[in-house]
Amino acid sequence: MSKVAKKVAKEKIILGLDPGTNIMGYGVILNQGGALTVLQFGVIQMGKSGDHALKLKKIFERVLGLVDEFKPDEVALEAPFFGKNVQSMLKLGRAQGVAMSAALFREVPITEYAPKKVKQSVTGNGNASKEQVAKMLMQIFNIKEMPKLLDASDALAVAVCHHYQQGTVKLKSKGWGDFLKANPGRIK
Amino acid sequence: MSKVAKKVAKEKIILGLDPGTNIMGYGVILNQGGALTVLQFGVIQMGKSGDHALKLKKIFERVLGLVDEFKPDEVALEAPFFGKNVQSMLKLGRAQGVAMSAALFREVPITEYAPKKVKQSVTGNGNASKEQVAKMLMQIFNIKEMPKLLDASDALAVAVCHHYQQGTVKLKSKGWGDFLKANPGRIK
Repeated sequence: MSKVAKKVAKEKIILGLDPGTNIMGYGVILNQGGALTVLQFGVIQMGKSGDHALKLKKIFERVLGLVDEFKPDEVALEAPFFGKNVQSMLKLGRAQGVAMSAALFREVPITEYAPKKVKQSVTGNGNASKEQVAKMLMQIFNIKEMPKLLDASDALAVAVCHHYQQGTVKLKSKGWGDFLKANPGRIK
Repeated sequence: MSKVAKKVAKEKIILGLDPGTNIMGYGVILNQGGALTVLQFGVIQMGKSGDHALKLKKIFERVLGLVDEFKPDEVALEAPFFGKNVQSMLKLGRAQGVAMSAALFREVPITEYAPKKVKQSVTGNGNASKEQVAKMLMQIFNIKEMPKLLDASDALAVAVCHHYQQGTVKLKSKGWGDFLKANPGRIK
């Protein structure tokens, strides 16, 4: 951890969400005076049932459960703004809206990030693959095993992205050099 | 009221919602043994502020407020499946998802209806104008004044549509003849 990071004493918990219609990734990170740790990350599967309302209900309940369990200070949402067609975007919008509701209901502020921004922030490359994002996260958090479902690492990535965007700490991890060089104003 | 309607003794409250990004219509109807009355209808304006999360928060809180105040047995949602572009559909999907969350949170079942279906159900014409829908509702409920914002009558219409779809009662109101003829199996 850098000396800079140690100046930040306040603990902060960030819940990252990557909501989809059939699967939602989530990742909870804790920032303790600049030291980042993963509290939990995984996926919530809405099942193959055709009942759309039931899937949305599950999203709401599970996100509310995460919010109540981890009491995040902030929620970061991975939110694509483009999609294949209007119907898939309507469905995605619903999943996002439902996930956001749970945070809004508990008065937790939400920040949205486009997928490209998340990739750029975590790996330094806005066009990085999901695998590259996951590998960088494994390095940052010293995770030994690659998560099976990359929705989980995507959610973790958006939490990390949000953390970096706040300028509270810059991890001195390999691969960050370029990003830091490109963003000198963000190092406090 | 028809003799058929009188057979249905149970009281039922239906909350109709027409969620949009900037304005949401709502209409609450009560079915008492087949006699339909409007408990309340109106619009919730999300304001002109650019803060998207704040608008969504308002939708959630106001819908939750309606659900808690009127304790509807069922929620009916007017849900277009087509739109101009993917971005507007994402926004609409979010507004819908947030509105649905409040009902899902209180365990109130939701049924969705396409706008064409609502128009068909209320006026007998799937291509009826909003004004025609509003006029038919004024007739059904003996409302003297046309609502200023047609989002309110649209929401009332979806509640009425849901009521009709359940086959609990068929109002013998002018304009229903064709619909009833076209749906003989639905008259119980």
